[in-house]
Formats: sequence, structure tokens, C-alpha cells
Amino acid sequence: MFRFQIVVALLLVQGSGRLTNGLQFNVTDNQGQGFLVSLGKLQLFRHTFSSPILFVGTGLTSFSEDSGNFFIEDYISSRLPLSNYSIDCGQTSCTIRLSRGDTFVALRLQSEQSQPLVIDFEDQSSDFDRIWLRLKAEDGEEIYGGGEQFSYFNLRHRDQGRENVFPVWVREQGVGRNKSTQVTFAADVQSRAGGDYHTTYFPQPTFVSSRRYFLHHDGPNYAVLDFRSPEFHEIFVLGLPGKFFINSGDTLLGVVTAMTSFFGRMPALPDWIISGAILGLQGGTQTMLARYKYAKDNQIPVAALWIQDWSGKVEMPFGKRVNWDWTWDPAWYPGLDSAIQNLTREGVRVLAYINPYLRQNGHLFTEAATKGYLVKNETGGVYLQRSVTLVFASVDLTNPDAFKWYKNVIRTNMIDLGLGGWMADFGEYLPVDAKLYDGRSGLQAHNEWPVLWAKLNREVVEDAGRLGDIVFFMRAGYSGSISNYTTLMWNGDQDVDFSLADGVRSTIYGSLSMGMSGVGLTHFDIGGYTTFALLGLVRTKELFLRSAEMAVFTSVFRTHEGNQPEANVQWYSNDTAPSFARLAKQFALLKDYRKFVVNQVAGEGIPAIRPMKLIYEDDDAPYSQYLFGPDLLVAPVFTEMINEWPVVLPGGSDAYNWIHLWSGTAYRGGQTVTVAAPLGQPPVFYRSDSTYKQDFERLKNESKMADPIIG
Amino acid sequence: MFRFQIVVALLLVQGSGRLTNGLQFNVTDNQGQGFLVSLGKLQLFRHTFSSPILFVGTGLTSFSEDSGNFFIEDYISSRLPLSNYSIDCGQTSCTIRLSRGDTFVALRLQSEQSQPLVIDFEDQSSDFDRIWLRLKAEDGEEIYGGGEQFSYFNLRHRDQGRENVFPVWVREQGVGRNKSTQVTFAADVQSRAGGDYHTTYFPQPTFVSSRRYFLHHDGPNYAVLDFRSPEFHEIFVLGLPGKFFINSGDTLLGVVTAMTSFFGRMPALPDWIISGAILGLQGGTQTMLARYKYAKDNQIPVAALWIQDWSGKVEMPFGKRVNWDWTWDPAWYPGLDSAIQNLTREGVRVLAYINPYLRQNGHLFTEAATKGYLVKNETGGVYLQRSVTLVFASVDLTNPDAFKWYKNVIRTNMIDLGLGGWMADFGEYLPVDAKLYDGRSGLQAHNEWPVLWAKLNREVVEDAGRLGDIVFFMRAGYSGSISNYTTLMWNGDQDVDFSLADGVRSTIYGSLSMGMSGVGLTHFDIGGYTTFALLGLVRTKELFLRSAEMAVFTSVFRTHEGNQPEANVQWYSNDTAPSFARLAKQFALLKDYRKFVVNQVAGEGIPAIRPMKLIYEDDDAPYSQYLFGPDLLVAPVFTEMINEWPVVLPGGSDAYNWIHLWSGTAYRGGQTVTVAAPLGQPPVFYRSDSTYKQDFERLKNESKMADPIIG
Repeated sequence: MFRFQIVVALLLVQGSGRLTNGLQFNVTDNQGQGFLVSLGKLQLFRHTFSSPILFVGTGLTSFSEDSGNFFIEDYISSRLPLSNYSIDCGQTSCTIRLSRGDTFVALRLQSEQSQPLVIDFEDQSSDFDRIWLRLKAEDGEEIYGGGEQFSYFNLRHRDQGRENVFPVWVREQGVGRNKSTQVTFAADVQSRAGGDYHTTYFPQPTFVSSRRYFLHHDGPNYAVLDFRSPEFHEIFVLGLPGKFFINSGDTLLGVVTAMTSFFGRMPALPDWIISGAILGLQGGTQTMLARYKYAKDNQIPVAALWIQDWSGKVEMPFGKRVNWDWTWDPAWYPGLDSAIQNLTREGVRVLAYINPYLRQNGHLFTEAATKGYLVKNETGGVYLQRSVTLVFASVDLTNPDAFKWYKNVIRTNMIDLGLGGWMADFGEYLPVDAKLYDGRSGLQAHNEWPVLWAKLNREVVEDAGRLGDIVFFMRAGYSGSISNYTTLMWNGDQDVDFSLADGVRSTIYGSLSMGMSGVGLTHFDIGGYTTFALLGLVRTKELFLRSAEMAVFTSVFRTHEGNQPEANVQWYSNDTAPSFARLAKQFALLKDYRKFVVNQVAGEGIPAIRPMKLIYEDDDAPYSQYLFGPDLLVAPVFTEMINEWPVVLPGGSDAYNWIHLWSGTAYRGGQTVTVAAPLGQPPVFYRSDSTYKQDFERLKNESKMADPIIG
Repeated sequence: MFRFQIVVALLLVQGSGRLTNGLQFNVTDNQGQGFLVSLGKLQLFRHTFSSPILFVGTGLTSFSEDSGNFFIEDYISSRLPLSNYSIDCGQTSCTIRLSRGDTFVALRLQSEQSQPLVIDFEDQSSDFDRIWLRLKAEDGEEIYGGGEQFSYFNLRHRDQGRENVFPVWVREQGVGRNKSTQVTFAADVQSRAGGDYHTTYFPQPTFVSSRRYFLHHDGPNYAVLDFRSPEFHEIFVLGLPGKFFINSGDTLLGVVTAMTSFFGRMPALPDWIISGAILGLQGGTQTMLARYKYAKDNQIPVAALWIQDWSGKVEMPFGKRVNWDWTWDPAWYPGLDSAIQNLTREGVRVLAYINPYLRQNGHLFTEAATKGYLVKNETGGVYLQRSVTLVFASVDLTNPDAFKWYKNVIRTNMIDLGLGGWMADFGEYLPVDAKLYDGRSGLQAHNEWPVLWAKLNREVVEDAGRLGDIVFFMRAGYSGSISNYTTLMWNGDQDVDFSLADGVRSTIYGSLSMGMSGVGLTHFDIGGYTTFALLGLVRTKELFLRSAEMAVFTSVFRTHEGNQPEANVQWYSNDTAPSFARLAKQFALLKDYRKFVVNQVAGEGIPAIRPMKLIYEDDDAPYSQYLFGPDLLVAPVFTEMINEWPVVLPGGSDAYNWIHLWSGTAYRGGQTVTVAAPLGQPPVFYRSDSTYKQDFERLKNESKMADPIIG
């Protein structure tokens, strides 16, 4: 039996969590019968003739699109198991040549100091256009991450075979996202917009295994993560893949911090955004200021006013929409410039909105079209796209001149106006048949578009010297966009209901899976966004307050009126302001603790919203519970008409108890307790040994009064 | 260039249509670069290294089931193009050896006098468990058949890629069969019963190409017919395939008659069933006789009374269901024996109902379980199955003793009671993990079950010397069940609406596609079956009469009360009887012509309900028009509130005109005419040279009065 080992030097870890020192990857050749690749004690790839680690093939993959909803069909023509192999190892790398007949791939495995194991397609025959790579899987193994996944936290849940498969394609997340709900059905029938369990703005070909390793595929190509099999994980890549990176650790926390060290980490959030509420408003200067006055009258601590309609509104067949022509509309927002100055002087930022698209025949569209800055179609004309009834074109972010021009639009029209940040929306719609400046097709660049969009925004902020002050927040993402560029994520457009797949509770899995993909700073529209009044899908007061009470225990506290504001309960509706104000105050009271938490994201790469499994690997708490930072355990209530709620308190530590935030009762870990959970008092516990204990007690003492449940 | 030819002798044709005389199949070897297999002038297979005709592979195919609705997931592990080839031809056959590495298949092509070309897997390596065979396809080529297909007549319609793919798996047809309808959605959510465009009781791996050939795969294995590609048709078979049979002709009619000659043909229908209405009734002897009296009072020509609840009813959680314990229930039908005698004396048959399943703990179940006659589960116990809330077991039709015993149940309990026929329902539910007496699994025998069920019924009828008198009618089918055994098909359970995919109009494509699969005798529940009152899906008078007026121009005229009789309009509802009676009289008036038509099915293998394309290949009439026999052109109206309707009259003949049945107006062929189409006068035309002209004129003269449209 041939055995070859390469010693890889100590992996540096900046944060907490421990990683194997002197980590090795081994290629063990079982006398021509197969081979095994392991990393330390971890078996990664097990190859035999009948069950090889790599398949290559040919086929046809078609993409159709409707307003950012993509429909992908795969036809596999050939799929060859590359069963034969030879291994050739040098000082720091091994080359494994896999083949079948004339078809072959040479994989190079390599590892350098402080870096993950890299698997590279060093050479290959030219007779295939797609690959499937298989990793060894084990009984009971769980998989987390995959970018932002809303319907499942454990992607290898083993129910319903199909729903263990996750396509990696940036797109609209869809409405309802569950084919058995009436909302999803109606959205599908009306506009193919219903979504499914896997549809997301931010997929990422990265996952973390409960066997304590992460895998990342580095490349923008369409891919599929398939966790259906009891024996293997399979990664499909259309076209030639990029590099695969794998690293393991002694703990999941070690794996995640190593991953964020590898990817890069998000900058810390500025103090202003973690200290008060951001109020989502619309309707012009007068309305904005009147709402702000109402907020002050109700003693809501306000960090910012966010006005998505600063560029005006245009009449469309299905109602008014924001004018995608990114210039202050002084008719719609008269005196906005001085209003911003006055508010900023009071310590209140004004935030606005932009996306990478320009409304057809708007001023910016016309200018960009003249300059040749818009994405082109196959015949060389401007590629006109559609978001429901709105027709627009995409700025070609692969064109350096267009990129610079659009940066200048933001700098001039937004930063110079005095704005303190913005929603950097969209990024998912690049059509596969678009022709880009850099010579690529839309298919090749599609997944990379959010990265370019994030990079553009980041550069504007950095060029203005305002990083750490201005915050822009995005929903679309892909490998690199978040860790390298974006200052904050938000979970996109939730339905204004309690549903798991797309209601406000879907923000839990969304945030947790981002955390396991290297993205530690995220937030959501309090109370959800997507309203469908005809179907009775409107925001209730209970939903709004349940969502807001969860937001207290996250990084950012921001409201949105939703797409049909008049149909939804708002913080300024009837008698809602006092309850909302109390929650906003709670948020503000946690500011010191939150600062510590977001600094841990920036410094150590540990997500703010942490999966229970990340910290307490041996405990089987529900995935819907989470830790906000090291000391707070949160079990959000997202069921209607609930007055109490069971919580699994992790055990195994004798060093501290769990103190129920609202009653002060101490519980030992290792048990399930049911606590009162009236509106305004979600089940939250803190560690008895927390240095922020006094802050948590202030929360209890100053704002524990609960609202009665609203029916 | 090597060229090899085998001359195949004259193909005998019993009916009309011409076939190529001296048909040859050729294998042309293009100097190692590929080969071509043709039949006469028809190119069937074109093989090159990069586009081979055969792929083999491995994978996992899983089947889950819920009340006869099967859900199949395919995971392809490997798919090897067998690109290398060698050809070895003898006197009457060629062997083509296809390979890639050690993997190979030896295909034997052979043809004998009067028979189709046979392609056989003569030998193969043992390293695969599924195959894909590709035929050459051409621009504009259309594909018909595939058993009973409800949603499409042309299976290669080229819209929506996925919907050109037809799995061959016997199952419930599903409710709604269109994922964008509320009915389908509700059925899916309630019980996964919604169905899809391809779901059918009777799929068959047989198709006819507009290029004038048929292909048949002979074997029960799960298969998929894939017509997505512009370049090829692909046939998938799970496991080793059976033989493939291919034959071509000079005309489509020649192809279809050659196909029915090869398959075998159905016996002609007896006179009684083609001469009057069969009334579907329930509720006991008194109700049956009262309804019959009402029918006579309304001068409805009655051929038979059909009572599906002759064995009684049992209370179930969602309402009463027929008692699946196949013995006359004298409590529910007191005096049925003498009632049958009296009715038979009047010339009216009584028909009943049976299926191959036995209700748990019924008398027959208990007897069969004791004798070991029921299908077993993996641990050797009785395999309990479920139809919604009804629990039952299947008689093991592969056990000769059980088969004989069940034949005796029918003979004793049904024929000896005096019944004139029955619905031989179901046959679709055999679970894949069942263990059968003959050693096979349910997976292996699933598609064959309707064949065994048909064979059993046929043998009972033949043993009693009653073939040509007793008629049993089935919905489930598979290759061989119909052509060799079944006496009549019906289209199963249509929704009581006008929808294309599953409403009463779906009977048109269902009948036409059966006709192109070798099955020429079928009928349907007048007015549909599936009622869903909670969703507003109830039968209107308009729907009932539109469906009945179409049935006039088919082989059999039978009503069904539907699954919620009280929610539906019936022939005995309010003022419906006079209109219904007039249509039943029309049906009876056509009896001589109908006899000629059904004898053509039996004698020449030409279906009674004929696709326009089968007879008029050069005309592009809508697929929803059909010919009933040689002389009647029918364009059923299945849109609400219609008073006129466009009809495409085929041209190209100077020998005759098309006479509009209700007005007597003559039209030349080769034009589209719009005719009045009030309720009771569907657009029907007859050939001016028809020998049945006088019968058609009687229809016009004796019953042309139309009902006003019902809103």
C-alpha cells in the first residue's frame, strides 16, 4: 500500500476556535483499487472504480427568465465516470489524473501555509462541458451555508429528495417559495414569480459540514450542490470549474473563522446604525418630516430616515413605482437638500435607494445609451429588460468607463446630496444571452453581477473616505461580494406573514445560513415586504411587532412600509407607535453589547446571528433558535396567538446559567424550558457570566411591559 | 463505402392504406465514421462518434406513491455514449456492436416476412442498468400516440421543453392535470393528486411519426419518451429493454393498420351497446327502476342501466364509497336478480362494477388472504394499499390459482347474476416494492398489471361463451391489454369542466392518441366525473349537454353521475331529460353507420375516432377536430357560451363535398367555415358520397332542434 503525506504548516486563526496544527492532506493509494484523500483525520474523497470522485459530461442547459425569476432545465447527454487514476506527488502537491478512455482530468491538490487545500483542474481533455465532483458523506452529517438559504438551515435534511438539491444561481427569491401555498401558486400563475425552496438572491457555492470542514468553489459558473445521497455530496459545475478550497478545523467555530479569514471579513458597522431605528418612509419631504416628528413625539430613538422614493415616482400600469433614474426629484422631495442638513445636524441620517438599472428613456438611461454604457443584446442594441411592467437596461459593470461613470452618479447625486447610506438593491437580472463589454456572455457573468455591483458601491464609499460611516445594504450576493465589498446585507422581500419559507420567520434561516457562508452582518425589513391584499396577505400588528421584537436582537433595526403600504400595519398606524417605541428603545439599550458583537464579525469573522450548532455542537436545539453574539440566546416566536414558547437551553457548561431576560429566572443548561412569550417579550436568555449583564437587566427593568396578543 | 441491404418481403395489409412493397432495411457504414439504418427511404438511426444512437448508464430511480399517484425521481449516475461500433450482417439480420471501453451492447436488427423490423439487445456488458436509444428526428416532424395522452395530441409540440417528455408509467391520471389551475393546485395540496400533462392510466411505449412509421418498445419496464430535441427522439428504458419494433408505410393509415395487425385488434362491439344509452345510476333497486321509468317516459332509448354500487356501499371518513367486496348486496339492491331478468327481457342490460382490489376485512379479502392470493409486502404479509381513506389489497394476478379464483368470483357473482357487462376499473396501483407470486417485484410488473387485469376479464367472458355480447370497459391500459384483451376503453375520470387538460374536452386527445396507439374503441363518462363542489367545480347543464352531443358521434353513449352526484346536473335533473333524450335518439339513429365504423376497428384496425391527420395528412386541421368513421367530421364545442364555431374542412378531393349535418349546406374542402353551433347541434359534416347519407339526414330532420345556450 502506497502512502503519501504532505505536511501543511500551522493554520493561523485570528479569532476564537481551534484549528488542527500541522494539518496534513494525505493521498492514500489502495494498490490500484482506489484512493483516499484526507485532511488530518478527515476523509474527504474516496475513489473506487465503481464509485469515482469525478464525472464529466456534455449536455444542454437552458435558462429562461421572467422579471428576475429564472427557470433552468438541464439535459444530460453524457456523464462519464472517470474511474481510472494515477497519482503523482511532489514536494507540496499531488496530481491525480482521472480518466476513462481518451477523456481525462488532471487534478492538482496543493496546500500552502495558512491556506486551505486547493484542488485545481490543471489539465483536461476538451470533450466535456460540465463536471460533477463527489465528496464522501457520512450518516448523520449535516450541511450548512450555501449562501442565503431561507427554507432549510441544514441543507442535507434527507426529507423529500429533491429539496436536498440547491442550484447556485443568483435570482429573485420568489414570492411564497413553497409550491403548496396559495400565495406561491397565485404568484406562479400570475407571473411565474412563486419561487421555490432553493430560490435566493444570494446563493454561494460554499458549505460547512458538521464533520468540521468547509468547501468553497471559486468561480461564477452555474453550479448545483446536491446533498441527496447517503454516501456522497455532489457538486455540479456547468463549464470548467474554478478552484475548490477545503479546510477543516477542530470545531465548527474554528472552521467558520478560518473561512472568513480566507474570504475576507466585513467592516464593522458604524455606531449610528446600531444605536437606533431606521424608519422606512415614502411620500415626499413633508410626509417624511411629519413622520419623523411623530416618531420623536413617541420617543422612538431614530438613527435614520430611509426614503426609497427620493428619485421620484412614475406611473405604471400596476401602480406607482420608484423612478429608476437616480437623481433627487425636487418636485417629489422639495427642499430635501436642506432637510438632510438639518436632520444630520440632529444626528439623524437620511438614507436613499439605488440599483444597477436605469429606466428606459430616463435621463441617465439616455446618457448611458449614448455613451455605450448599457449591457447589449445579441444584435448589439441596448438589452431592454423588464421588472413586471417597468422596462430598463443594466449598466455594463464590466466596462471600466461605465463603472466609473456610475460611481460618479452615486458620488455626485447621493453622497454630495448628504445621504448617509442607501439600499443598493437588485443585481440578479443579468440575462444569459447578454453581450458584455469584457467579451463575456451574460451566462458567464450572471452570478458575478452582485459582486461587481457591491464593488462599485464600496469603491464610491472608500473613494469618499467614508467607509465606517456610510452604510449601503444589499440583498443580492455571491462569493466575494459580501466579504470583500458589501457593508451590510438585508434578507430581501419577505411576505407579510408567518410562513417558514418566505414569511418574516424565513429571515432566521436566511441569516443563519449567511453566517455559515462567511457573512456575519445582515438585517431585514421589520414586518416583511411583499403584500398581496387581494389574497388577504396583509401585515397585521402582531406580525409587525413579532418581527420588530426579533430585530431588537440583531444588528440593525429598520422598518419598511412594504409594497402596498396602505394595506399594512405600520409603526405609525393607530396605536402601534408606543409598542414599537418600546422595542426601538430596547434596541438602543443593547448598543454597547451590539458594538462588541459586530466588532467580533469584523475582527474574528464570527457572525452576529449565530447558529446554535456553531457554538454548541453537541446540543440538538431547534435551528430556529439562535445566539446573538456570545451571550444572548434568542428563540423568536413566529406563530400566531402564542403566549408561551419552548426553548432548548444548551448544556454541557458548569460555568454559567441561562437567565431568562424578562423574568430574571436562572436555568441550568441541558434542558428544555417553556417560558412566557407575550408580544414584546420574545424568549431571550443571557449567560449569567456575561459582562453585559447590566445592560440586559436594564432591558428588563425599563421596557418589559408586554402588549396583549392581537387576534 | 460499405453498403448492406436485406430485402424484406411484402408487408401484408388487411385494411386500407398502402405500405411499401418489398420494404428493405439498410445499414450503411460510412467508412468507420458512422452508420445509417434506414427502412425503405426512411432514415431511422444515424450514428456518429459524437452523436451515437445508444447511451447506457447507471443511476437511481425512486418511486413514491399516494393513492395511485406516483412520483418518480431519476438520478443519473453515469451515462456513456456507446460511440464505437462494428457491423456484422448475415442473410436476414445485422448485428451492430456498440461500445465504449469495456461497456458494450450488441444490437441485432432483423426482419421477417410481414413483420416489422425488430431490434433486439442480443448481448451486452453487465455494467449498466438503463439505456437511452436515439432515433433521427426531422424539422416539422410530429409524434402521435404514446397510449392515452390527454393534454397533447402531437407529443412533439416543441413548446415548453419539459412538456415534450412523456414518462411511461401506469397511474391515476390526476385531478386537473395542469399545474396552473386552481383545481390541480387544490388536489395537489390536499392529497398530491393533481396530476400533470403526462399523467395517464394508459401510457404505452408506442408512437407514430408523421414521417410515416411506428415504433413500439415491447416490455413492461419504466420508460420515458423524450421528444424535446430538434435532432432526435430519445427512448429511455430503466433496466434492460425488450425488443423494439419499427415499421413504416406509404401513408399514416397504412402505418396504423400495420400496427394494429401486429398488435392484434379489438373485437367488434355488440349491437346492443351501439344502439342506445347506458344510464349510470346508483342508490338501490327502487331508485334504479324509478330512473329507468323516467327515462322511458322521456323516450330515451336505453341500452343498459349501469350500477356501480351493486355490491353495496360502506361509510368512509369522506363519504360513502362502493363496497370493494364483489358480491351482490341484497340489502342495498333488494330483488336485483329478478329485476335484471325483467329488464333483460325488455332488451335492457344491467351492468355493474369491479376492480382488482379487495376491501380490507371484506369477505373476499378474508378468503383471499387465507388462501395466500393477495399481493405481499417485503416482509411477506398482505400488502395493504390505500385509495384515499379506503384500505385494500390487490389480488396477485401472477398467481395462477388466485387468477382462477378471481375469474370464478366474476363468473359466479356477476355473470351468473345476469349482468350484461361491467366497468373493470383500476389496475394502476401496484406498489413498486410489492413481492409477487411469480418472483417479480412490483417495479417489474407495475405496467403489466392492467394487461393481466384485462386478460382475466377477457377469459371470464370467453369461458362463458359471451364474447361479442358481454362488454367490460377499462381505463387502465398498457401494451397488449387493449389490443389483445379489453373489449372497450373509457377515458377515466374527467373533471366536470371545459378544461383542456382534464375536463370533458380532454376526452378528444385521449381518444385520438389511443387511436394512434392501436386502440380504436373508447368512450367517456358523459359530463365528466370529478366534482369538487367546495371549489365550485360542479357539472352545469351546458357542460353535460355539450359532452353528450359529442358522445352521439362516438362508439358508446354512457352517463355517469360523478363522484358528487347531488352537486351535478344529471340527465334526470329538472328539465334536462328532453334535451338528453333527443341526443340519445340521435345516437340510436346512427346505429347502422356506427356498426360499420366499429367493424372497421375490429376488421381493419382503423380507430373509430380518427385524427384528421390520419386520413388527411396534408391538411392542417386543429387536432381537436376528428373523424368518426370514414364519413363524419366532428368539431366538438368545448367552450362555454358559444353559438358558432370555425371548422377546417380538409381539401384535396374533388370526389365529394362536406355537408353540414344540421343545415344541409354543402361546402367544398380546403377551406375554413364558421357554422352555427348552438347546444345540441355541434359542428358535424358528412361526406356527400357517404352511403349513410340518409341516416345523417334523418338526424337532421328528426332531432335538429337546438337548446338555447345556458349561462
